[in-house]
Amino acid sequence: MNAADRLIQNIIKKKNPCVVGLDPEWSKLPSCYQNGKTKTESILQWAKDIIDTIADIVPAVKPQMAFYEVYGAEGFRVFEEISAYAHEKGLLVIDDSKRNDIGNTARAYALAHLAKEGSINADFLTVSPFLGTDSLTPFAKIAKENGKSIFILVKTSNPSSAEISEAKRKDGKSVRDFLAESVAKMGKDDIGEYGYSSVGAVVGATFPEEAKSLRKQMREAIFLVPGFGAQGGSAGDIVSCFNEDGFGAVVNSSRGILYAYQNAISFDGSRGSYLQTVRDATILMRDAVYAALKASYPKMKY
Amino acid sequence: MNAADRLIQNIIKKKNPCVVGLDPEWSKLPSCYQNGKTKTESILQWAKDIIDTIADIVPAVKPQMAFYEVYGAEGFRVFEEISAYAHEKGLLVIDDSKRNDIGNTARAYALAHLAKEGSINADFLTVSPFLGTDSLTPFAKIAKENGKSIFILVKTSNPSSAEISEAKRKDGKSVRDFLAESVAKMGKDDIGEYGYSSVGAVVGATFPEEAKSLRKQMREAIFLVPGFGAQGGSAGDIVSCFNEDGFGAVVNSSRGILYAYQNAISFDGSRGSYLQTVRDATILMRDAVYAALKASYPKMKY
Repeated sequence: MNAADRLIQNIIKKKNPCVVGLDPEWSKLPSCYQNGKTKTESILQWAKDIIDTIADIVPAVKPQMAFYEVYGAEGFRVFEEISAYAHEKGLLVIDDSKRNDIGNTARAYALAHLAKEGSINADFLTVSPFLGTDSLTPFAKIAKENGKSIFILVKTSNPSSAEISEAKRKDGKSVRDFLAESVAKMGKDDIGEYGYSSVGAVVGATFPEEAKSLRKQMREAIFLVPGFGAQGGSAGDIVSCFNEDGFGAVVNSSRGILYAYQNAISFDGSRGSYLQTVRDATILMRDAVYAALKASYPKMKY
Repeated sequence: MNAADRLIQNIIKKKNPCVVGLDPEWSKLPSCYQNGKTKTESILQWAKDIIDTIADIVPAVKPQMAFYEVYGAEGFRVFEEISAYAHEKGLLVIDDSKRNDIGNTARAYALAHLAKEGSINADFLTVSPFLGTDSLTPFAKIAKENGKSIFILVKTSNPSSAEISEAKRKDGKSVRDFLAESVAKMGKDDIGEYGYSSVGAVVGATFPEEAKSLRKQMREAIFLVPGFGAQGGSAGDIVSCFNEDGFGAVVNSSRGILYAYQNAISFDGSRGSYLQTVRDATILMRDAVYAALKASYPKMKY
């Protein structure tokens, strides 16, 4: 069993390929969570409450490292604790740190985030590919050795993502397609029981046409799909990120779930009502994505 | 005065544009530094001793985050402490973390590493550009607001760096030249007293032809030049990274200095003799680069 298998088992169990980002932007947190002794203490409590609230609905959570690192070593420690807590609650952890470097430096980053005996022990790590394949193979290697997985940025969801990813190489391939090919190659020797590899790709929900083509190029890769909701990707847009078995992608939403309370008439300022808005938004997303998948892939396996 | 000015003042004072990387690869550290209570305690002592040994020679140090992050929150704390210690000793800190993301996430990373009131308070941060310009502007903005600077990866020193950086965009420019143009544009409104901006570029010592062209495209950018020594770049190779004033670049060596002891007959196993090899290698590099610069640019300003 590789990390892709563990993810798919959780997706089947929850009947849900949607994950929730844990991005604590301090100014957006409800004031009922801004009253701990320290900001990091508040954030830890907030994250644990979110995990408790959605643990029966989602297969994994995706904490975004920047929002912890901004509090220095103490923030890093909170990130470690959140990862452990999510595991306790049966959730997988997608560590969205977008690390990148070469050689032994890449190896050190991979161990920091993915080593079984490491302090974070994440199941998945996002990796940025600017330095080329010799910056990717060390991450893929450490991931496999630890029964973990990586998501390589291939086509991100932001407006300027095309500036680099659509450039054409001498061999006629776009950077995007070259990366897709690299992902497929690197994952080939670690295909799990469900047919998916331990080398995945980040493919934004905001570019459905590109997603369709990338899906064909990386049949065995799991896609991490950001950009759903707040960034404009719809449930209809994301079906092309999946295969006909209903697997092959996890869709992330962060702001659309964490900050749904800002537009919720049911929110009365209490933690209980805040967490209810989180739960409601998580279920809403699950149902929308599941319905869109069922409509496109009637033979999906869950 | 911007961060480029502070760097140049230090370069003039030390008559040296070379910096030393602080990359503690545990297995390569001399055994006289492997006997602290914990690995992180050993590494902190090692880094402080290196800083004491070279503080009168170099303008800055470049700690590589991966080799600290691998020890989790405790490693992160040691990184913070090393940054503070380097500042105490009059050195600038080039935080080589190659962070990258978009929007508020990029902002959080930039604050984590560059904010004056932050726990690291680095002077410079390396930034990876795969996501495009909307992932770079938040870093540039936070840097300027805090009197700090960034180095954007433009042409790295590793063998596969061409895979993405040499691809051609629709406008006919290579990714590399597009990034050079972006660096020049982003830095234009923050030019310091010596004529250099707060947005710099990473340009590898291993590609001197490309460096020559990039130098022309980014007249006001400071280059961080890795790849000297261990990675194969020579003193002759790196002169094209500089302008005729002798400014415009800092050259880094890590392994060539930190692990020179492995081939030094003078090394007797003691910390004293280890640190002497570090000092000797640092002086050797300074003299080689200075002589190459003087030969190419007789009118250089220091």
